[in-house]
Amino acid sequence: MGFSPTQSRPGLSVQGEGARRVIRALPDEVPVAFVFDGTTQAVMMATPADIADFAYGFAVTEGIVTTQEDIEGFEIAEHCNGIEARFWLRGDRQEALAARRRYMAGPVGCGLCGIDSLEQAVRPVPSVAHVSPAFTAQEIARATDALSACQPLHDLTRATHAAGFILPGAGVVMAREDVGRHNALDKLIGALWRADIDPAEGGIVMTSRLSVELVQKCAVAGCGLLVAVSAPTAHALWLAESAGLTLAAFARGGGFDLYSHPHRIPHEVPDVA
Amino acid sequence: MGFSPTQSRPGLSVQGEGARRVIRALPDEVPVAFVFDGTTQAVMMATPADIADFAYGFAVTEGIVTTQEDIEGFEIAEHCNGIEARFWLRGDRQEALAARRRYMAGPVGCGLCGIDSLEQAVRPVPSVAHVSPAFTAQEIARATDALSACQPLHDLTRATHAAGFILPGAGVVMAREDVGRHNALDKLIGALWRADIDPAEGGIVMTSRLSVELVQKCAVAGCGLLVAVSAPTAHALWLAESAGLTLAAFARGGGFDLYSHPHRIPHEVPDVA
Repeated sequence: MGFSPTQSRPGLSVQGEGARRVIRALPDEVPVAFVFDGTTQAVMMATPADIADFAYGFAVTEGIVTTQEDIEGFEIAEHCNGIEARFWLRGDRQEALAARRRYMAGPVGCGLCGIDSLEQAVRPVPSVAHVSPAFTAQEIARATDALSACQPLHDLTRATHAAGFILPGAGVVMAREDVGRHNALDKLIGALWRADIDPAEGGIVMTSRLSVELVQKCAVAGCGLLVAVSAPTAHALWLAESAGLTLAAFARGGGFDLYSHPHRIPHEVPDVA
Repeated sequence: MGFSPTQSRPGLSVQGEGARRVIRALPDEVPVAFVFDGTTQAVMMATPADIADFAYGFAVTEGIVTTQEDIEGFEIAEHCNGIEARFWLRGDRQEALAARRRYMAGPVGCGLCGIDSLEQAVRPVPSVAHVSPAFTAQEIARATDALSACQPLHDLTRATHAAGFILPGAGVVMAREDVGRHNALDKLIGALWRADIDPAEGGIVMTSRLSVELVQKCAVAGCGLLVAVSAPTAHALWLAESAGLTLAAFARGGGFDLYSHPHRIPHEVPDVA
């Protein structure tokens, strides 16, 4: 069938009282279903590109798989109304799958009372305090500019997010794009996993704000550094602090803000502020 | 308990090799549970402000309520880990609630096969073709600038979205903010509904891209015009075309792109492009 990450569509460009006909490359989004052993775990609206990376990243950040051996089979099936990513898991992963399904079922139509649902809303994350890549301040300051050189979909559409992986001394070594920032991060984490690159060795840089969910995904993937062009939420910062994750934000214009666990980025701080 | 939409947090502002201590106002996000007749329908991470607007907007855009009489009771309960918005519905709304719960359960842990789940992912929307507010091109070109004057949370944090309501000849008459763009739109629609303002009389302007879900919410609320500072996805445009909704995008710098149903914004187009 062939979905495309962009669609050329006619529009009118209006300036003042006049208008001219234009053709714009718009990003597309299609439903992508993640199916494990014949049962749908989730459906996401996503840019139809790097679907295998997306599916593997989702399986990792949701804690459904932890090693390559957990996956016995994988295939992608395109339908007229969306894309299915189908996994077959090793027998002993059924328990993790069922646990996560109960968890995910919580927020939506779960039948629980409000108090139980709130309790389940923010899942605990593993600590990445032991992870120790070190970057110079200059590398962090340059990270979002370096990422923007790896965003062909954004160059076309001016409307997609990206997640990139940086290594000390090497800059952005991998990047993935999507209309959704959470999807872009899952795609990147899946791509790293499939390429057998350990997220603990570097840092992740995002074109967006930092929500609780992005910090969760980063920590579950085992990465100790998250850099973003915009702000973290206070809740995301609290989670990063408790997970031992270094959070750098507002990384643009040659500088950045450093919030939690600053030891991974050596810097001089005056004793008197 | 008292949640606040922003939290002041210490950070380091790094420039070059040096750093100075700063205090930043970060936007916060907390779990908000929507509970109908004692059962949780959904939990969203959202900015803790305008929670009643948010809850009413969610109930409207999810099709759970259609008139004020559907709601027999409403209260907000704050807990240490989040906020509950509790509705009690008139007896005959149980069917709509159950139908929507089945629908929402679809994408998450639903037990359906992937093909059924894809089928359910993009819900049909009502037509707004009959809705007829007319705006000048100048009003649309100015809409996002006018909205930015109604974003106190963004002025503080530089990291939140907004949705505004514009009326012909009157500019932005109402606006709501949130860390999430979908939440900002639900808050605006709920605020209009509670103030007994018909969304059909004006247009909605957003600080974000336009996804399928934003077009769905706008159409379900009965609004015929959606204006955004960034691009629509191709799928969102297709949905707007089929729902009779006027979609204006890239509204910034004094101009905008007009994609679907341009009749609501009179303009001159040269016969030869």
